Amino acid sequence: MDIREFRGWLFDIEGVLLDGPAVLQPNIDFVRALIERHVPVLFVTNTVMRSKDELMKRFTLAGLPISIDQIVTPIDVACEWLIQRHIKKIHVVAPKPIQNAFSLFQLDESGEALIIGDFGTNWQYRELNHAFQWMMLHPDWPVLALGGGRYYRRQQQWFLDLGAFTQALSWAANKTIQNCGKPDRLIFETAVRKLGFKASEVVMVGDDYASDVNAAIAAGCHGILVRSGKYRVRDENRLVKEAMCIDSLSSFSSF
Amino acid sequence: MDIREFRGWLFDIEGVLLDGPAVLQPNIDFVRALIERHVPVLFVTNTVMRSKDELMKRFTLAGLPISIDQIVTPIDVACEWLIQRHIKKIHVVAPKPIQNAFSLFQLDESGEALIIGDFGTNWQYRELNHAFQWMMLHPDWPVLALGGGRYYRRQQQWFLDLGAFTQALSWAANKTIQNCGKPDRLIFETAVRKLGFKASEVVMVGDDYASDVNAAIAAGCHGILVRSGKYRVRDENRLVKEAMCIDSLSSFSSF
Repeated sequence: MDIREFRGWLFDIEGVLLDGPAVLQPNIDFVRALIERHVPVLFVTNTVMRSKDELMKRFTLAGLPISIDQIVTPIDVACEWLIQRHIKKIHVVAPKPIQNAFSLFQLDESGEALIIGDFGTNWQYRELNHAFQWMMLHPDWPVLALGGGRYYRRQQQWFLDLGAFTQALSWAANKTIQNCGKPDRLIFETAVRKLGFKASEVVMVGDDYASDVNAAIAAGCHGILVRSGKYRVRDENRLVKEAMCIDSLSSFSSF
Repeated sequence: MDIREFRGWLFDIEGVLLDGPAVLQPNIDFVRALIERHVPVLFVTNTVMRSKDELMKRFTLAGLPISIDQIVTPIDVACEWLIQRHIKKIHVVAPKPIQNAFSLFQLDESGEALIIGDFGTNWQYRELNHAFQWMMLHPDWPVLALGGGRYYRRQQQWFLDLGAFTQALSWAANKTIQNCGKPDRLIFETAVRKLGFKASEVVMVGDDYASDVNAAIAAGCHGILVRSGKYRVRDENRLVKEAMCIDSLSSFSSF
């Protein structure tokens, strides 16, 4: 497929446009070129620990001024999911800044849905069991998680990610938890709806062959793996056959 | 089957013989009668937070003096499992008293097997991630858990049990963890071997239809549910068809 046929583009942020403190300038330049041609662009990230304001600042410094509405996180997905179901009162088990991101809703332990956010390395029995007790008391009410990753790697060490904790809760309470982040199709569907196109007209670019590329394709989009960020040799062998794989978005510079 | 045909008896402790601070005297009396008739008896419990010495004291106070060798816990199962495989150096992620129970082994982070014990309500990210990192560094080495319960209930509240945490680890590291407690068959096999009989000659008595009774039957033993402890109305409907169900062991007083 010719990349000019994609009507909308979705980009993972970490590992594709930003990499820790560094900026992946060739990729940033490609996104700027898309925007200059008025091609609709959104940024799809599972990161909710860092605020959108912080991300915006870093994009601006990298020479890519974007609007806050162009960033789609699991929090946006959860909000839209709740609004569609007319749920107004929710219980949020998450650190304070994430609770604040749900200011559209009334936050109350008697809420009709539970949102589970990430405490990062500060998870303790208390918070986890608090979520568990809510689930046992309200077995028929929905539970949403702001991410479902197994683990991440930082400074040569492995770290359990939010998905491990929601897996513990889901297993113990014998109840499905809806993941609002990648790789669940919900976040791609939310982004595609925001663009106003059909999934088949949209492409997702990411550095994670599973969570970004294969998952986007499973949600009906196209998918491109870039060899940066968390990409590791032979990841392309794990891609579904419809996926593309490139070294950098500058491969498309002549489009 | 006539209960006189059972050559050895296994008893759950909590909810069958002791119930929190209380003693279930009719059941205790039945066990004493068995011992007086020289019928071999063992006590099979998942509790490792309380020491065997403490349990012995409570049995003595209840008029049932037993030997320490008659109590089988997940720690005993783990020790036997390790000895059978000639593993001498192990890494134990557990509170200090549980670490001390593995004094037969050399405890070292470079050990060839990982034992995961229960931190109860003191679980923190740090301990959990420490176990996770070990599992990721040694993907081919065995991991044993001292229990696999989903949750327990105390003072009208639900509490996540060890199984929820090992489920998180197993899922995140994509690795099977061997549960040394009920309902895994390993603990019943260990107890049956200790008795020196065939599984089909042994009966397990418990208050948990799943973990005690159905699980023992799945391991080849017989099983009896008593309506005390955590028993709830209609639990008998969840028993496999080979199981028996009685109000109390005094039902057998005329045997």
